[in-house]
Amino acid sequence: MIRMKKLALALTLTLLPVLGGHAAELRGTGDLGLVVERAAGSVQIVDTTHRTSLGRVQGLGDLSHASLVYSPDERYAYVFGRDGALTKIDLLEARIVKRIEQAHNSVGGAISQDGRWIATSNYEPGGVRVFSADTLDKVADIPSVTADGKASKVVGLVDAPGQRFVFSLFEAGEIWVADLHDPKSPKLQKFKAGKEPYDALISPEGRYYIAGLFGEEGVALLDLWNLDSGIKRVLPEHAKDDPKFPVFKMPHLEGRALIGDYWFLPAVGRHEMLVIDRRDWKVVKKIPLDGQPVFVIPRPDERQVWINFALPDNNKLEIIDTRDLSVVKRLNPGQAVLHMEFTPKGDEVWVSVRDDDRVMVYDTETFAELARIKADKPSGIFFTARAHRLGL
Amino acid sequence: MIRMKKLALALTLTLLPVLGGHAAELRGTGDLGLVVERAAGSVQIVDTTHRTSLGRVQGLGDLSHASLVYSPDERYAYVFGRDGALTKIDLLEARIVKRIEQAHNSVGGAISQDGRWIATSNYEPGGVRVFSADTLDKVADIPSVTADGKASKVVGLVDAPGQRFVFSLFEAGEIWVADLHDPKSPKLQKFKAGKEPYDALISPEGRYYIAGLFGEEGVALLDLWNLDSGIKRVLPEHAKDDPKFPVFKMPHLEGRALIGDYWFLPAVGRHEMLVIDRRDWKVVKKIPLDGQPVFVIPRPDERQVWINFALPDNNKLEIIDTRDLSVVKRLNPGQAVLHMEFTPKGDEVWVSVRDDDRVMVYDTETFAELARIKADKPSGIFFTARAHRLGL
Repeated sequence: MIRMKKLALALTLTLLPVLGGHAAELRGTGDLGLVVERAAGSVQIVDTTHRTSLGRVQGLGDLSHASLVYSPDERYAYVFGRDGALTKIDLLEARIVKRIEQAHNSVGGAISQDGRWIATSNYEPGGVRVFSADTLDKVADIPSVTADGKASKVVGLVDAPGQRFVFSLFEAGEIWVADLHDPKSPKLQKFKAGKEPYDALISPEGRYYIAGLFGEEGVALLDLWNLDSGIKRVLPEHAKDDPKFPVFKMPHLEGRALIGDYWFLPAVGRHEMLVIDRRDWKVVKKIPLDGQPVFVIPRPDERQVWINFALPDNNKLEIIDTRDLSVVKRLNPGQAVLHMEFTPKGDEVWVSVRDDDRVMVYDTETFAELARIKADKPSGIFFTARAHRLGL
Repeated sequence: MIRMKKLALALTLTLLPVLGGHAAELRGTGDLGLVVERAAGSVQIVDTTHRTSLGRVQGLGDLSHASLVYSPDERYAYVFGRDGALTKIDLLEARIVKRIEQAHNSVGGAISQDGRWIATSNYEPGGVRVFSADTLDKVADIPSVTADGKASKVVGLVDAPGQRFVFSLFEAGEIWVADLHDPKSPKLQKFKAGKEPYDALISPEGRYYIAGLFGEEGVALLDLWNLDSGIKRVLPEHAKDDPKFPVFKMPHLEGRALIGDYWFLPAVGRHEMLVIDRRDWKVVKKIPLDGQPVFVIPRPDERQVWINFALPDNNKLEIIDTRDLSVVKRLNPGQAVLHMEFTPKGDEVWVSVRDDDRVMVYDTETFAELARIKADKPSGIFFTARAHRLGL
């Protein structure tokens, strides 16, 4: 494994393609995906049509909590490493196109609506940096320093319609909207969000940005169609009567489980999922679960929500029917179920099972196991169809 | 132009790739699209990243009202010709992979949720036929013959979750749901829909199938999550008081303009668009327009709806802001504006202008013209991102 921690300059690395040992072949890219192998610092390229592995790209550094986005043509991935590295990968040639150390500690990134700019959100030294998707040349630096001169960690960075990026400042408790029409000088709008926003999501159409708050109850909701009305603090009525009710301590908000009028949200620290009406933020139902939920991810047709769990229940999955809001199935994929990714039309789901070194593929209708793919301590799974979705 | 009308057998035609004269190159397929050139019987391959034409595939026969779908890997297109031909095209090599005459008169088709089956809906001899997406070998024939022994034209064919196809029988006034889990023997469920269903759509998540009725007022709504409850006939209260109110004579239903709680529907024969609350089917607003609307298509971020018009106003476009339900912009792309297709994240829209032999590309935020691409009497525009969406 190539370690890149000390690398200060942008490099162009060309690893040998590993597509079965022969040259890259002409093929479509709409059915490809990447599986993050966190311990090895590699990603595995998968083919969802044939449920097979096509190759591996190594030398990506520290991939704990790594995430990635895709170029609009679904050929390239941009991998955001925890060590602050940004790596551009060519899926067709199974190689690193370019790799830069853009910060010391990073937690993700986003690609602009038009596919031309990559933004990274950084813990250390903080701030958002913007790079050309083509060359990875830096085009803008947005320090997350507030009027009091203090720097904040940046979290919950997403792309939004209108060539914007939206992100949260943990220490400052603010949400910033950056307009990238002129990428070299982003225009910023800043909002007081609440105490310690720690993660965020954007609704599928790109209108609502919701940040979870670590330092207090509730979530901060920003309507990007009505920025003038500012942040709305949302707290279900239930929580008002029960100060210990940890409604919105969501460990991960990426699931974007907004289905019809209902948000499906994990209640952290409880063995429950909450169903909340988006119109009045009242709790419609509390669904008992077999563990503390981590990811709550809707099947693309919205008929099911799949849930994985924190320790000691991280060997399980539960599936909720969104019509009658009940658990319809329990699965036991194996030790340390870390992530789930649905095929774009929802007929299959791919599940990473870290400690058993495999990815499991399930039929989402029959729950039958369709395939197992070997992977080295797999964590995140990302299919190229994300290229066509706002906020992913 | 190669005419294929008399061709009875499946043929494999290999036309020369026309990608600038050189061999097909390694590239992603997520940013490709096809523009139907109806008079010439060809399709033009376009690159949405660079807003350029990559080549042309000829010999597709009668392409009036032609439509197409994409394979999950976004490499292949299946073109449904009006003359009953089904043609599989390789976008990377710009060639016909295979072409069959599967009926005498056809109006479209669909690809199954898992990408393995292609279904065609036929006027003459009627019925739905199912083919292998790989080989175009026929695997099933579903005659649209009702209990009285009469055949019907099939319209409004879409794919639905659960490996299903849904379609309507014009003469019989029925909606059929075909379960393709065993593709060689589809299981059918049949519903009385109303008089002369002539077109249909499915909501983006794949739950609601809505057929427009030619022979009577109202639309037929089928909830695919609750088939036992059967067809619901929907008629806005407004229409009940005004028998001449032609609410639901929609010329085309493909736009799927369901945004939040509102359906945006063209009122045929009137210069109006209707905004209807999906919860009670009441008319929220009638928006006056400059002509008789044809297509009503939402921008992917749902903030705008774009509308084109029937003669004599088919040189115009109007854009509605979905927040305040008002017209925010009028454009005049040219003579005979036939179709619009948004880039997946909605920053651009491509518009076919038949009689001016061009496709216009607009920035959907500034409404600035970004490019013009020459095309021979262009009609439908289809981007590969459709491969990842249910019902498209």
